[in-house]
Amino acid sequence: MAIETISEQRLHAGVQGFYRHESHACAGPMRFAVYQPPQAARQQCPVLYFLAGLTCTEETATIKAGAQRLAAELGLILVMPDTSPRDTGFDGATGDWEFGEGAGFYLDATEAPWSTRFRMASYVVDELPALIGVHFPADLARSGLCGHSMGGHGALTLALKNPARYRSVSAFAPIVAPSQVPWGRKALPRYLGDDPAAWAAHDACELVRRQTFPGTILIDQGEADGFLEAQLKPELFDQACAESGQALLLRRHAGYDHSYWFITSFIDDHLRHHAKVLGLL
Amino acid sequence: MAIETISEQRLHAGVQGFYRHESHACAGPMRFAVYQPPQAARQQCPVLYFLAGLTCTEETATIKAGAQRLAAELGLILVMPDTSPRDTGFDGATGDWEFGEGAGFYLDATEAPWSTRFRMASYVVDELPALIGVHFPADLARSGLCGHSMGGHGALTLALKNPARYRSVSAFAPIVAPSQVPWGRKALPRYLGDDPAAWAAHDACELVRRQTFPGTILIDQGEADGFLEAQLKPELFDQACAESGQALLLRRHAGYDHSYWFITSFIDDHLRHHAKVLGLL
Repeated sequence: MAIETISEQRLHAGVQGFYRHESHACAGPMRFAVYQPPQAARQQCPVLYFLAGLTCTEETATIKAGAQRLAAELGLILVMPDTSPRDTGFDGATGDWEFGEGAGFYLDATEAPWSTRFRMASYVVDELPALIGVHFPADLARSGLCGHSMGGHGALTLALKNPARYRSVSAFAPIVAPSQVPWGRKALPRYLGDDPAAWAAHDACELVRRQTFPGTILIDQGEADGFLEAQLKPELFDQACAESGQALLLRRHAGYDHSYWFITSFIDDHLRHHAKVLGLL
Repeated sequence: MAIETISEQRLHAGVQGFYRHESHACAGPMRFAVYQPPQAARQQCPVLYFLAGLTCTEETATIKAGAQRLAAELGLILVMPDTSPRDTGFDGATGDWEFGEGAGFYLDATEAPWSTRFRMASYVVDELPALIGVHFPADLARSGLCGHSMGGHGALTLALKNPARYRSVSAFAPIVAPSQVPWGRKALPRYLGDDPAAWAAHDACELVRRQTFPGTILIDQGEADGFLEAQLKPELFDQACAESGQALLLRRHAGYDHSYWFITSFIDDHLRHHAKVLGLL
């Protein structure tokens, strides 16, 4: 479980680091970013994972979300993984921003060749936290999960499937019903095969009907988001939560689009949401 | 004085825009970024210009400095220009990150061929503010100037030479004595010729000895900055200010380097410094 430090720099009196390691789950090298707040020099701190969207890497949210300022105040460790394995050499793994490298969809693929390396669910839920627990002063019993777009899909589905691992969950403009929208209808069959039952196990709307998540799920959605109507459809999750009794705070924001300008505008609210559940506020 | 809108996006209840226009000073197209805080929808707001460093563009500080969050609270318009003209086609204008495109040094070149297009002093001090005044709800009588590294050199020298234009000035890790350090000794002769007297007119240490700036100059410097000893030498400006009676607040921060992680860690302090002088606090 060795990790290699790519860089570590002082940020808001803490440390912003980028790391590389040999992943067992993804059968190859993976990168991730960790922000350690100043409190981490003295004590264990709770952890918030941020899962990024299509085309992104571990650098995207680290550079653009602006989460570290308040994380430094609150005493929250931030972990930003990459969105897929890289340099897999698989036919079709690059060249399409909606599938393959940069588009791992936070699931364990079952179809060849993807099943050998595209195992982001196991990576994010099991392998990465174990690494974080060994190499950083993290209190893994207090972990939260947040994500954007495809990463919002990851946050919702992984939290709903692993409620013992995450005490809080939130998302920006998440894909909530991949079984029903073009992004999911393209990626899920290639990773999981043609049986819709397999897709349902990675569909937040389906999952929340089976088992609710303890506490309130926070979702922010921009109303000027160009993907809102075709790919995101938050009303489907709203309805599924209402039917299953899941507490949901879905906020719609006029004028905001799908970009990190939207995320950074509301990231502080998400950090406070997690900080309250994780015992920091 | 037409400008073309490249993009405008909602950010912190205001508008982050990128624009392009035909510059008279630089004899070609130039780009800049403007953040309008929510207050700008109702009233004129003071303006803070941020001048970026070597290799940067109008996007760098816009994306990495994290200045918009507090600017939105304070009601401060942010203007981020590019660091030089682009696509000049001049021999030697590209391929060296320390000179030419991306390295305009915020001066008006006098040597051929640079003198026809590398006129960033006129651009930043005269042409850009005139554009901002026409196209944005800016109160130009309340303008401040901030910058990083080469842009810190720009902020200090342009403010010292134009005290009627800027009411406040601050810098991160500025080049304060370009006549004496490798970056300046490379660029100044090429832009200005071999007479050291011409360099002195663009050297903050020389300028502050001729005329002080009203009010306190704020400078932040990281002590783990890899350029500190060879290129930055803030102690020279400290000494020049002491000799001339210039009020200076020079803060040294252990562990911080030359990056935007350093800038974003202290940008709020700079915004408040300017906001106080510009009548917002």
